[in-house]
Amino acid sequence: MIIDCHGHYTTAPAAHSEWREDQLQAFLTGRPQSAYPSISDDAIRESVETNQLRLLRERGADLTIFSPRASAMGHHEGDLATGIAWARACNDLIARVTELFPESFAGVCQLPQYAGEPLDAAVAELRRCVDLGFVGLNLNPDPSGARWTSPPLTDPYWFPLYEAMCELDVPGMVHVSASCTPVFHATGAHYLNADTTAFMQLLQGDLFATFPQLRLIIPHGGGAVPYHWGRYRGLADMLGKPPLATHLMNNVFFDTCVYHQPGIDLLFEVIGLDNILFGSEMIGAVRGIDPTTGHHFDDTKRYVDALPLTDAERAQVYSGNARRVYPRLEARLTSTL
Amino acid sequence: MIIDCHGHYTTAPAAHSEWREDQLQAFLTGRPQSAYPSISDDAIRESVETNQLRLLRERGADLTIFSPRASAMGHHEGDLATGIAWARACNDLIARVTELFPESFAGVCQLPQYAGEPLDAAVAELRRCVDLGFVGLNLNPDPSGARWTSPPLTDPYWFPLYEAMCELDVPGMVHVSASCTPVFHATGAHYLNADTTAFMQLLQGDLFATFPQLRLIIPHGGGAVPYHWGRYRGLADMLGKPPLATHLMNNVFFDTCVYHQPGIDLLFEVIGLDNILFGSEMIGAVRGIDPTTGHHFDDTKRYVDALPLTDAERAQVYSGNARRVYPRLEARLTSTL
Repeated sequence: MIIDCHGHYTTAPAAHSEWREDQLQAFLTGRPQSAYPSISDDAIRESVETNQLRLLRERGADLTIFSPRASAMGHHEGDLATGIAWARACNDLIARVTELFPESFAGVCQLPQYAGEPLDAAVAELRRCVDLGFVGLNLNPDPSGARWTSPPLTDPYWFPLYEAMCELDVPGMVHVSASCTPVFHATGAHYLNADTTAFMQLLQGDLFATFPQLRLIIPHGGGAVPYHWGRYRGLADMLGKPPLATHLMNNVFFDTCVYHQPGIDLLFEVIGLDNILFGSEMIGAVRGIDPTTGHHFDDTKRYVDALPLTDAERAQVYSGNARRVYPRLEARLTSTL
Repeated sequence: MIIDCHGHYTTAPAAHSEWREDQLQAFLTGRPQSAYPSISDDAIRESVETNQLRLLRERGADLTIFSPRASAMGHHEGDLATGIAWARACNDLIARVTELFPESFAGVCQLPQYAGEPLDAAVAELRRCVDLGFVGLNLNPDPSGARWTSPPLTDPYWFPLYEAMCELDVPGMVHVSASCTPVFHATGAHYLNADTTAFMQLLQGDLFATFPQLRLIIPHGGGAVPYHWGRYRGLADMLGKPPLATHLMNNVFFDTCVYHQPGIDLLFEVIGLDNILFGSEMIGAVRGIDPTTGHHFDDTKRYVDALPLTDAERAQVYSGNARRVYPRLEARLTSTL
């Protein structure tokens, strides 16, 4: 079985994103938001069957851990109330995808976070989504949209969410949304910077001493981290922290969203197999075909297939680790498949 | 000959940094700054001979392209006037090092940049330093200290500096300074994020169409860029830019400040030899010994020595590229050695 731990619903029906635009206009002009539009099952089916599900099948994977479009989370837009309504709308749409295609998609939710506001609404939405069958969440370490006004992930500000995550046994993918500033291109700078930043925040702190059951996935192959693994081992030493293997790597995981073979080779050379989850982020940041290979940049399965792994090792990266890190997915798979 | 393109004077005599502290106190309290202290040649000699020069010799390199301590540039502290005085003091100290050890050090200057202010003072200081024999400059893309309030490097804001760089034929290393926010650890997040961010800004723009002679070195192995080289090739394609080889790589260079063998292996696998300059950033970000090798993390020469390069290729990375990218260094070397 092959599980893609990182997919976004970037192809949701237009009515969904049009409602969001209208909602933000309503917020800005002070009028009440419109009712959420009716979206048919057929529209959802088509948006998925012609895109993510088609590619999933073509590329030979089985199931995608599926979340709302990351760049559209837009936690910095509107206020907390608009964010709550938007997160519910996005997550309800994911829930419908997972109900229509239960064997191909498992849900991960977007949280209503707003910089400076407490996390009660985020925790409430997480609980609601877990009741809907979701297996994880996306945690935005910077809901200000690249202004970086929230405290580091090791700050007690985040603890109410971590407590709920441990209680519900759901992991979080650390994933930012759009960038408000032309300084940071979203998918070319802000995403990778956030991955690198989150890892270093965790390195500086002792979060997993407080929350030993907490599990965080750092996407996009861990940002700059595996490439600079020597730097991080050295910084841990300089900061008087334990070796990374015990300090962080019981709780931190990287996906394989690295869009060329040399990057995947490096990832597997320096990061233990226990900490790598197959992922592609399709359909997402880079949609083209690599002229040097003739295949899509984000067809990351090809790179993993090319690695000299044993069958057992490959199974671990393709599904074993995901089933361990997402116990609610494991429970669903063992009960239904 | 082995040239280290990235060294900082992190061991300057204490009187130098004490003056800076006093200068900032004077700024805050409104009193005039004190006179810069007298620092003897012997104090400078000792600070270098027991540190950078010792390590240069022990590790078998010949010359370091040497600039003031990056984290202490502190462009966000004080105001433009304090920054002008501080840059002069730092650069004058570098000039004294290069006069005391002309065969071992070539100067690169710190610029008096202040977010929101024009670059006239930076250009003036660059001209002064080139008159003192400096061969390059450090350009801070974020003088706000991790608040990122300046426009992207492709914005006309920066053009007066680029015009001077082209006229004087000096390259710039894109290097941030300290971080004002606990969100970004300086050497573990802010530095690498800035490298990644700068590259993506250049990718989005067409700066080298306007300044075909401009040369920028992105340090720390290019941040996350080589690890995600497929992503950047794909983003260039999505943004309708030419291939990276012609769009950026006639003008952008990476150093070898990547502190483990797999990272260096990847760098050389994906980035052309013409674009890699040997560098160590010693004595800098990571000062310890790697327990897995028994050698200093930042002894990057060992990693490069371990690569299967021909003598000609090795010579290119160790000195040929630096002599090409820094023509004023080449002129100095051919006139004096």
